[in-house]
Amino acid sequence: MRFFSDNAAAVHPAVFQAMADADRLDTAYDGDEWSKRLDRAFSDLFEREVTALWVTTGTAANCLALAGMVPSYGGILCHREAHIQVDEAGAPEFFTGGAKLLLVDGPGAKLTVDALEDARSRIRADVHQVQANALSITNATEYGLTYSSEETAALGEWAKSRGLRFHLDGARFANAVVSNGASVADLTWRAGVDALSFGFVKNGGLSAEALILFDPALADGIRRRRKRSGHLLSKGRYLAAQLLAMLEEDRWLANARNANEAARRLAAAAGERLVYPVEANEVFLKVSPDEAAALRAQGFDFYDWGAGEARLVTSWDQDLAAVDRLAEAIRAL
Amino acid sequence: MRFFSDNAAAVHPAVFQAMADADRLDTAYDGDEWSKRLDRAFSDLFEREVTALWVTTGTAANCLALAGMVPSYGGILCHREAHIQVDEAGAPEFFTGGAKLLLVDGPGAKLTVDALEDARSRIRADVHQVQANALSITNATEYGLTYSSEETAALGEWAKSRGLRFHLDGARFANAVVSNGASVADLTWRAGVDALSFGFVKNGGLSAEALILFDPALADGIRRRRKRSGHLLSKGRYLAAQLLAMLEEDRWLANARNANEAARRLAAAAGERLVYPVEANEVFLKVSPDEAAALRAQGFDFYDWGAGEARLVTSWDQDLAAVDRLAEAIRAL
Amino acid sequence: MRFFSDNAAAVHPAVFQAMADADRLDTAYDGDEWSKRLDRAFSDLFEREVTALWVTTGTAANCLALAGMVPSYGGILCHREAHIQVDEAGAPEFFTGGAKLLLVDGPGAKLTVDALEDARSRIRADVHQVQANALSITNATEYGLTYSSEETAALGEWAKSRGLRFHLDGARFANAVVSNGASVADLTWRAGVDALSFGFVKNGGLSAEALILFDPALADGIRRRRKRSGHLLSKGRYLAAQLLAMLEEDRWLANARNANEAARRLAAAAGERLVYPVEANEVFLKVSPDEAAALRAQGFDFYDWGAGEARLVTSWDQDLAAVDRLAEAIRAL
Amino acid sequence: MRFFSDNAAAVHPAVFQAMADADRLDTAYDGDEWSKRLDRAFSDLFEREVTALWVTTGTAANCLALAGMVPSYGGILCHREAHIQVDEAGAPEFFTGGAKLLLVDGPGAKLTVDALEDARSRIRADVHQVQANALSITNATEYGLTYSSEETAALGEWAKSRGLRFHLDGARFANAVVSNGASVADLTWRAGVDALSFGFVKNGGLSAEALILFDPALADGIRRRRKRSGHLLSKGRYLAAQLLAMLEEDRWLANARNANEAARRLAAAAGERLVYPVEANEVFLKVSPDEAAALRAQGFDFYDWGAGEARLVTSWDQDLAAVDRLAEAIRAL
Repeated sequence: MRFFSDNAAAVHPAVFQAMADADRLDTAYDGDEWSKRLDRAFSDLFEREVTALWVTTGTAANCLALAGMVPSYGGILCHREAHIQVDEAGAPEFFTGGAKLLLVDGPGAKLTVDALEDARSRIRADVHQVQANALSITNATEYGLTYSSEETAALGEWAKSRGLRFHLDGARFANAVVSNGASVADLTWRAGVDALSFGFVKNGGLSAEALILFDPALADGIRRRRKRSGHLLSKGRYLAAQLLAMLEEDRWLANARNANEAARRLAAAAGERLVYPVEANEVFLKVSPDEAAALRAQGFDFYDWGAGEARLVTSWDQDLAAVDRLAEAIRAL
Repeated sequence: MRFFSDNAAAVHPAVFQAMADADRLDTAYDGDEWSKRLDRAFSDLFEREVTALWVTTGTAANCLALAGMVPSYGGILCHREAHIQVDEAGAPEFFTGGAKLLLVDGPGAKLTVDALEDARSRIRADVHQVQANALSITNATEYGLTYSSEETAALGEWAKSRGLRFHLDGARFANAVVSNGASVADLTWRAGVDALSFGFVKNGGLSAEALILFDPALADGIRRRRKRSGHLLSKGRYLAAQLLAMLEEDRWLANARNANEAARRLAAAAGERLVYPVEANEVFLKVSPDEAAALRAQGFDFYDWGAGEARLVTSWDQDLAAVDRLAEAIRAL
Repeated sequence: MRFFSDNAAAVHPAVFQAMADADRLDTAYDGDEWSKRLDRAFSDLFEREVTALWVTTGTAANCLALAGMVPSYGGILCHREAHIQVDEAGAPEFFTGGAKLLLVDGPGAKLTVDALEDARSRIRADVHQVQANALSITNATEYGLTYSSEETAALGEWAKSRGLRFHLDGARFANAVVSNGASVADLTWRAGVDALSFGFVKNGGLSAEALILFDPALADGIRRRRKRSGHLLSKGRYLAAQLLAMLEEDRWLANARNANEAARRLAAAAGERLVYPVEANEVFLKVSPDEAAALRAQGFDFYDWGAGEARLVTSWDQDLAAVDRLAEAIRAL
Repeated sequence: MRFFSDNAAAVHPAVFQAMADADRLDTAYDGDEWSKRLDRAFSDLFEREVTALWVTTGTAANCLALAGMVPSYGGILCHREAHIQVDEAGAPEFFTGGAKLLLVDGPGAKLTVDALEDARSRIRADVHQVQANALSITNATEYGLTYSSEETAALGEWAKSRGLRFHLDGARFANAVVSNGASVADLTWRAGVDALSFGFVKNGGLSAEALILFDPALADGIRRRRKRSGHLLSKGRYLAAQLLAMLEEDRWLANARNANEAARRLAAAAGERLVYPVEANEVFLKVSPDEAAALRAQGFDFYDWGAGEARLVTSWDQDLAAVDRLAEAIRAL
């Protein structure tokens, strides 16, 4: 009964089936029929024309987008605990050619216009300081909080008013969509988002994430950067097929719903122990070392998160009966 | 009946089966049991301890290796028509931070010690010129020629005598091994090779290539560069399982044998039309535009290769009956 | 009567004279007799063999040193308000190929072993996080505080124990040396420093700073990076001559003494208004906007430093009579 | 009597005088009065509004311009023997973040539209190959040939028709201007040039070259890159003053005239020995090793240039009497 990462979960059967269906000779790279269907499929989902590129990791999606948005001498406003800052091994610096992440604080890894404006206003416009050229947020955040479409739009409006590009790291975007009940359009381009890293791997995929570009001007450069960074797989049809399978029958939504429901049940059990409100599929609990050990003794796996806290992440395939057992165990602490 | 690229071929059923077998919860990234078995499996194959990393493309394998070998201000000796120079969109420059490819000529994209020494001797040692820090060759070459273990060892000896690292791009290494009948050890580390990009995707794989490091000192930096370049997939077990399936029962050799046999049959039919000797799975033919059209009219697909030439590439799953029909059609021209 | 920057000061007459003396044909770049004398001259000063390279800016000196010390995927521990972080336009990221500055806090822009160890201990060793490969401090700091040789040695010992390189940004190193009364050897290599950016331009020079390498292994790569970054001037003898002139007759010490004495007099007048102890040639004062305006009305120029503070910087050629007038004006506020 | 490099020559007295005149307190970096006069002074010279930035080396000027013109994944068409390819230690790759130099041949290091079109037409437009984004030529070339305004305009027209930026490396631009008798406007922006590296150091300057931008859109990014690459000197007024002194009284033309006249005399003496026509201040001679030794025995210094050739470079301050002695010695061979 593992709750340590949605990265570790299995793959949805329909994803495997789609790959098997694509297992015949076709053109290499992204010239095949599946890859060519991506733009249409995601354009339908987002209610406007988009460019949709498969990539194999969220890090690649994030950093290809950022490299397309900021010059090498530029800066990217993001949260101090954003994945791009903390857990991508300097990939943003690598892909952009040395742009600087300009760090901003806020509870639960969420950013606000006030915090951003404060950070930006401290930057002198002269050539001695790195300027802010883009804003990157994560929805759901690294602590499982979500931005509503209104919150996103406020950030987007601010970004545009300051001449900044707007990137959304959506490693758990499906969970945010389910949680908010908003349309994907309202949570992205209608709110000013220029590029979305749309995560599928944590949500039942195998090796395909989608990078969605709402600004056509970004597409050519990012396509070239994808090749140049070694991310243009020769048998791309197996990636495209994964994404199409996840979109079909709204599997991506069903999967996220299950993960969120699992987290909701744990949150209900946790009560006062919650460090943050549970809005997606992550639950941060205050537990003593003894309590953590007690849970582990009952077969529950999870990460410690600093002193006195634990992180539980629920997955698309989480068995809800096991979740209820964990919920009960938490209540019993 | 397509002969335009082994990249376009289907995936070996055992590869799919291995991925299905790996489809259960395990640790993310490369902490899973399959990824952990890679070093052992490849060490057995190479008759010494090696580090084996999965990556998704040959470009990533090549460029991670090169980035681990040369400083950003360094140079890499390679053939003027090497894949890293011609078809990787500047990926070597990107991964290395701007190292320079130092181009050397030779028929069939093969390099010799004489050509290399000539090129190197023209470089002044002062700080105004980029120095040569590594040698990169391709086996089989971009024109389907192979290096024997003796030829490789001669290059390796020269490289070491000049203080150069030695990289082998083995996108079609399996075809070279089958063609030469030499051991993989003799074709690599015993010949002085420091790192091998060991291709599997063209040879029946889906999305996993292997980067084999013979010098343990390269491993830590390259592991970090793999993450930093977005190439550390979260569900790595599905990549490791592909490689293990290809190694089992020597499938990689059987697949390459089939591709090479198909090419051999075409070569026998082509006779005087051959541009290069056929030593692996690529056949370059002299054909007039009318002749090329005639072949296409019979349902054979392939690339034109400059004026008056055609490139035929055979795959692991090439139907030998179709190959014989093409051979007959070539003879009938 | 300007107190806004030692960068704006004039050039010492001996520096001009030395350039005039070097104004005859010699070998280009750094093959001339003046450039060749640098290693010896600085080795004598530092009581050991060093490599001394002229460069034209402190940013170049800092970033060439850092690029020689850390891999592109590495990290550099420094103060959150270090010049390399705040005022070099991302030059460290540019020269290193995207290394990350790992920011640490401390009053007056000074770092302590405790703060560094705390920061470093929060970094996981896995490939997802950028590791610390070097430590960079500034002496005197951006707020005019100095590190003693004992403080420097404690940092150096810690750095070595953690496998880190140690860089010292000495844009105002002369002022720190005068202030501490320690030997330059004790403040650098005997304390574990691997490379020193030794500033001369703020201290009476024109366009030459010295990059001092205490580890000979760093020299070849940094020489190549100097050329590659466009910093190898063809008429280098005019830079070398500037440095030699500053070393002769200990001019660099005399100049720094004058600047420090000017700051000392202002500090004595400022009393409770001082934000930091004045240990070099910078004075940070608490002054209201009205008080600042009053000083300016008397002809004194300086920078505001956030709300309610002013920064006064004294120069090597500061007229002490004018300094005394400012001191009086401060007392009179 | 040295003829090996104009880089080794002395500095014009007016340049020294201008630096002495600027030796008073002013604003740091490029906020001083001299730096502020540059745009006007060069705009007058070029008969249109330009941005003029001081930098300390031609390599910096070239590579800042190129970095402002091409994306990191782009390519730059240039001659195989261009200085940026052969003698800048990979600086173009460093400044651009890894762009590729796309090499083209032509006698005397001169490029033609035909050669360029041929090279460009071999590049596939797909994402696997680096595209050409800019053209860079050198006037006078590395072999002392010049482009006329008509030749330059033909290249510029071609570049624009292919969507390429156009950079001119003018390390010896003054010599080309004198040689051609054309206006600087006709040799640059009227011919489609976007940016000019305007050399002064070889022509009597000390440490200041000018980067001239004819497209205002390039200015902001290149200013930031100048700082980021460590090329924004704090006492910039001493650089600006050098440039202004060279422009005053057309000193840059007078200096180049003297150098060219010296070369003309040598060329007249060399007759059939000339490898290239002498159009600027470089003379390439066919001489046997014995003949070269004989010249050296008479006190003449120069570089051997491959087997059986010698390179003589004349300087702004070349003593014409010494030149005549060398001419006589060449005739006497």
